[in-house]
Amino acid sequence: MTARALGADGIYISDVHDRELLETVKSVSTRFGGNFQIEAGQSWRSIVTTWKRGGGRVIHLTAYGMPLPGVIGKIRRSRGDKLVVVGAEKVPGELYGLADWNVAVTNQPISEVSALGIFLDWFFGHRGLEVSFPNAEIRIVPSEHGKKVLNP
Amino acid sequence: MTARALGADGIYISDVHDRELLETVKSVSTRFGGNFQIEAGQSWRSIVTTWKRGGGRVIHLTAYGMPLPGVIGKIRRSRGDKLVVVGAEKVPGELYGLADWNVAVTNQPISEVSALGIFLDWFFGHRGLEVSFPNAEIRIVPSEHGKKVLNP
Repeated sequence: MTARALGADGIYISDVHDRELLETVKSVSTRFGGNFQIEAGQSWRSIVTTWKRGGGRVIHLTAYGMPLPGVIGKIRRSRGDKLVVVGAEKVPGELYGLADWNVAVTNQPISEVSALGIFLDWFFGHRGLEVSFPNAEIRIVPSEHGKKVLNP
Repeated sequence: MTARALGADGIYISDVHDRELLETVKSVSTRFGGNFQIEAGQSWRSIVTTWKRGGGRVIHLTAYGMPLPGVIGKIRRSRGDKLVVVGAEKVPGELYGLADWNVAVTNQPISEVSALGIFLDWFFGHRGLEVSFPNAEIRIVPSEHGKKVLNP
């Protein structure tokens, strides 16, 4: 949901079998709009190598990588679709070599989903926070103190 | 860990009893340095009202709030220490009234920890990503493709 909200086109879920997660994301996408894609079942290695063969670039978020502020410009200017990889538990060493960039959202331990959110925010030049989602069934109307939802 | 890495001074964990979480955060703080504080056991209401009585300001992160880009300047310029509140499951309606600002990191469903990370990044003017932590036992050395750790 963070990837979707921050402007990613879709997500691959690898090496994890979580039907509930898939259903939640699909349900949110239907209600809140947009065309976010979600796919599961492929191995991470097959996704990454296929992506690279197709001319895409791979960014691996890891505390061991190069600090985000120093590399984001180069990544933004690079050609090819971008695949951002975040690992849940131990990440295989092989991925550090396969990635075009290993990027640190701080060189400190941090939750993967927050690293992903912050990376996407920087990648889209801090303009992704107000992305609008077409075909929404419901839409939140910003409030100072309360909850307003429109059902267009 | 996201709050710590992004420059917060500490965290209150409310209405949740998770000894493992406390131990993990303390262990990370010892190894990676800094003076991050963690406290558990108080109710959220008592923390929020005490904070306000002491002259502090309360920011509640919620998809129903006002978009971050429009309010962050005012929050940054405001006086008083800041308490950022993120709710796990259903947030009591009362909090929307108690908060000085209800802030949306996108008006879309999003993971709370990523909302917190993005908020802190904006709050510190995107300069918090390279905070250094004193008294670290280990320190990551940024690498393009690999893992380097210093044991100073």
